[in-house]
Amino acid sequence: MEAGAQREATQPMLVVQEETPMVGVRPKDTEHETEAAAAAVELVVTQPEVLAPEGRTDYDKLVDLFGCQQIDAALVHRIARLASRPPHRFLRRGVFFFAHRDLNSGNMPTRVDPFLLNPPSTGPSGFDPFQPTKTLKPNARFMFTEYLQDAFKVPAVTVAECKRLARENAKDIIACGFDIQRTFIFTNISYTRRAFYENILEVAKRVTCEDSIRIIGGSQEDNIGIVSFPPVVAAPSLPSSFPHLFPRNDQPRCLIPCVIYRDPSFRMIRDVAPKIGFHKPSLIESKILPALQGEESSKMSASNPNSAIYKQIKTKVNKYAFSGGQSSVELHRKLGANLDVDVPIKYIEFFLEDDDEFEHIKKEYKDGRMLTGEVKQRLTAAISEMVSRHQRARAQVTEEMVDAFTAVRPLPNMFG
Amino acid sequence: MEAGAQREATQPMLVVQEETPMVGVRPKDTEHETEAAAAAVELVVTQPEVLAPEGRTDYDKLVDLFGCQQIDAALVHRIARLASRPPHRFLRRGVFFFAHRDLNSGNMPTRVDPFLLNPPSTGPSGFDPFQPTKTLKPNARFMFTEYLQDAFKVPAVTVAECKRLARENAKDIIACGFDIQRTFIFTNISYTRRAFYENILEVAKRVTCEDSIRIIGGSQEDNIGIVSFPPVVAAPSLPSSFPHLFPRNDQPRCLIPCVIYRDPSFRMIRDVAPKIGFHKPSLIESKILPALQGEESSKMSASNPNSAIYKQIKTKVNKYAFSGGQSSVELHRKLGANLDVDVPIKYIEFFLEDDDEFEHIKKEYKDGRMLTGEVKQRLTAAISEMVSRHQRARAQVTEEMVDAFTAVRPLPNMFG
Repeated sequence: MEAGAQREATQPMLVVQEETPMVGVRPKDTEHETEAAAAAVELVVTQPEVLAPEGRTDYDKLVDLFGCQQIDAALVHRIARLASRPPHRFLRRGVFFFAHRDLNSGNMPTRVDPFLLNPPSTGPSGFDPFQPTKTLKPNARFMFTEYLQDAFKVPAVTVAECKRLARENAKDIIACGFDIQRTFIFTNISYTRRAFYENILEVAKRVTCEDSIRIIGGSQEDNIGIVSFPPVVAAPSLPSSFPHLFPRNDQPRCLIPCVIYRDPSFRMIRDVAPKIGFHKPSLIESKILPALQGEESSKMSASNPNSAIYKQIKTKVNKYAFSGGQSSVELHRKLGANLDVDVPIKYIEFFLEDDDEFEHIKKEYKDGRMLTGEVKQRLTAAISEMVSRHQRARAQVTEEMVDAFTAVRPLPNMFG
Repeated sequence: MEAGAQREATQPMLVVQEETPMVGVRPKDTEHETEAAAAAVELVVTQPEVLAPEGRTDYDKLVDLFGCQQIDAALVHRIARLASRPPHRFLRRGVFFFAHRDLNSGNMPTRVDPFLLNPPSTGPSGFDPFQPTKTLKPNARFMFTEYLQDAFKVPAVTVAECKRLARENAKDIIACGFDIQRTFIFTNISYTRRAFYENILEVAKRVTCEDSIRIIGGSQEDNIGIVSFPPVVAAPSLPSSFPHLFPRNDQPRCLIPCVIYRDPSFRMIRDVAPKIGFHKPSLIESKILPALQGEESSKMSASNPNSAIYKQIKTKVNKYAFSGGQSSVELHRKLGANLDVDVPIKYIEFFLEDDDEFEHIKKEYKDGRMLTGEVKQRLTAAISEMVSRHQRARAQVTEEMVDAFTAVRPLPNMFG
């Protein structure tokens, strides 16, 4: 039980013992009001190059600065054991979700505890400047959240902030396979229940303007709509925001799958929550995908998925994905690829499910038996397959399904 | 018609010709984004003593700094003519409402035009540091708004911001005599209609954090709840916030009766409104009552109004109201009172309805025939009478009446 949590969970709670020390653990969980954390955010916002020397993000440094914890093999195994299924490749390879807060202290989703998943959707323009993969649909964070929901049979709520795009975003989220019996998608405009608005105000009262500006990486010149947004993003972490889901004032714990750069934002709600009688939400934090240079400027067409998409992805991968291969075939056969800087291999690690094939490609490429062009071809196929699969699923999502997922309704079988 | 107002009023509009130049008119209506206006607010907030040398507020200077306009005799007479009744003493004596924006340019309430009155309620702690008369109930601004409603037969909406005090505030407002057929009282928490929230966001998008901090006279250290409040206060000036009142997208003009120190706050919405397709609301602005030194620290009891109140008011007036009388009766008989610094006479001007009696007291006091004690006695009687009358009216206000005034409902006969 967190100190300061005044309301008790009404369901049984399975306490998981500490199994092993974490890699990169700091002496204490640094919350948003400490000077070290503030300085870290300052650094991230004003000097992002410090954390990405030579274009590669230094995640170890980021974890250290933020004061969160690396996910180690023991934790991955524990999650898999509790989920009764193999760990997701995003976890087992450390290729995407790699850090956390509080996942190792009784805050793990289990099939026994009530638990709420709360992945933030993309924010308004300028809110999340570090997320480069917007055009790479489907959104990997939602794919992973769906994995967690399916593994633990727990409810998920997600706030889509932009009214204009909310229905389109909702379709992408639904296409990831979320269970309508356990999922509530809403926007801060469509869902104006008093309980939610009151939680926004309760959080807002406890965050200074200065902190809020720091969280969004903005300035006093930003409009007050953006600056006052962090409490809106934070409030869905408080279960009482949803009286239609938790009418008996239940207190499920909450897990927020988010990108590491959102850590300051949710560190804020972790700081505020116990002050107003809630559990601290725990976090599971992802890396960002290395950018395919130029990807932000063009979008993949949704029309004619089976032919056009492959060509578009092929063009993009061939043109932009930085290669760690050598300058000539002869040299490459001799020296092999430098996997540390090679972008295609990182994408394959991310997109290819099959571990054996992935290891095989890595070895062949590193030893020079496989050429960059061949790796890119495999990558193109993997991305195309995933995008096509998502677009087929998305095409099945009707307006009625969006209405159903976004309806303010009880979720009778949301647990177990 | 304002430039930028994209929606037309659906009802006929009476255009009143300019009758006379205003006193203190500036070349142009200075809106919130100009440097001069910003500097003025800065001055008011950081150096209030500049505007109140020797404890007396320099309203001329304030009007000049803010760029609003003094209400002159011609305007008072025009209001009275349109209202078909004598001008309220607050207007005709210039003792309370003394300045305005846009009341002289076709933005006057008439019995023909659709018009909406929108007096702001008191804000959250720290929001309106310049309002010293909080304990002097009934709230004079609401008394005046009720006069306008009764004169022009127009609807009024008012937002009471603090949940805890909202019902108590509502009772005081109702006790001022508002017409339930034309009045909607709400809080930003109880009234969570999407249209209202969307207007808050539309305004928030167009106000920088810096401006918002300036409007509240705060700093970056203030919490984001307070800093993001100006759009909440501003949004009720936009008729589309109330689809239950104006379902056909009518565009009544809006008049905001407020204290002069709220000018920066509503200058903001005057600036923003035309950008999002609304009329600029006009303002009618009051002075503040001179403080009875020490009044803030004690409250008048509501119990046993007929005896206790008189005694409490007597004690307070005798103890705190600064006298412009002379140090001895002999000297006073000879020199008379200095009305410029005398607080009791200012309060009598404010509270006493009878013009003849007021002029008589002024003359007798100034010439030394009336003593400070006698003036204070008359003042005590006047305040007591008003407070007692209000408390009797307030005692008649039932919980059901509060429910009725605050119900989200159409107002079928709100005009005329």
